[in-house]
Amino acid sequence: ECLPDVERLKRSSWTLLHTITTAYPTEPMPTQQEEMKTFMRMFSKINPCWCCVEDFRAWMSRPENNVSKYVQRRKTFGKWLCDAHNDVVENIGGGSDACVLRISI
Amino acid sequence: ECLPDVERLKRSSWTLLHTITTAYPTEPMPTQQEEMKTFMRMFSKINPCWCCVEDFRAWMSRPENNVSKYVQRRKTFGKWLCDAHNDVVENIGGGSDACVLRISI
Repeated sequence: ECLPDVERLKRSSWTLLHTITTAYPTEPMPTQQEEMKTFMRMFSKINPCWCCVEDFRAWMSRPENNVSKYVQRRKTFGKWLCDAHNDVVENIGGGSDACVLRISI
Repeated sequence: ECLPDVERLKRSSWTLLHTITTAYPTEPMPTQQEEMKTFMRMFSKINPCWCCVEDFRAWMSRPENNVSKYVQRRKTFGKWLCDAHNDVVENIGGGSDACVLRISI
């Protein structure tokens, strides 16, 4: 229960992260934007998925992926995470579970 | 994929959180302790599990559950999360998936 294999860990992490983006306000207040930026930055440091932590961190550190501008709206934040997912999954040789924007944003 | 039911969301969240505690250093540096405190505080705000977010937040806000003292060691931090899990699960009428400390800490 407490020590999942890496596939389960990856699935769990993405499930939680995508749900976080769908629960994010459509037009978040500045405080909520700050909290979400801080959460994502902390997550990029403590992400326990040893197979993707470096790729995710590298992706987030690219200027064009700076989370600050994307947390201004639910729609852009959700897209940002799907882009991260697709990019990180591609880097680790996956592809079949790449995120598809099937949610109503 | 992007909109899990609440059971899947709960499982995913606990899986990720418990794995985070097992990946935490045995004796974390002050910076790592700060990052983990911040992560948990942000998570308590943005936790998308609508069925347990209030219980988790209330549990964390009790003085005896102040995360600051628990992040000083992996062992105490892991125990802190299991206590949170057991308490929150009990409050929402569950019990069967209560965390058992089966991991080597």
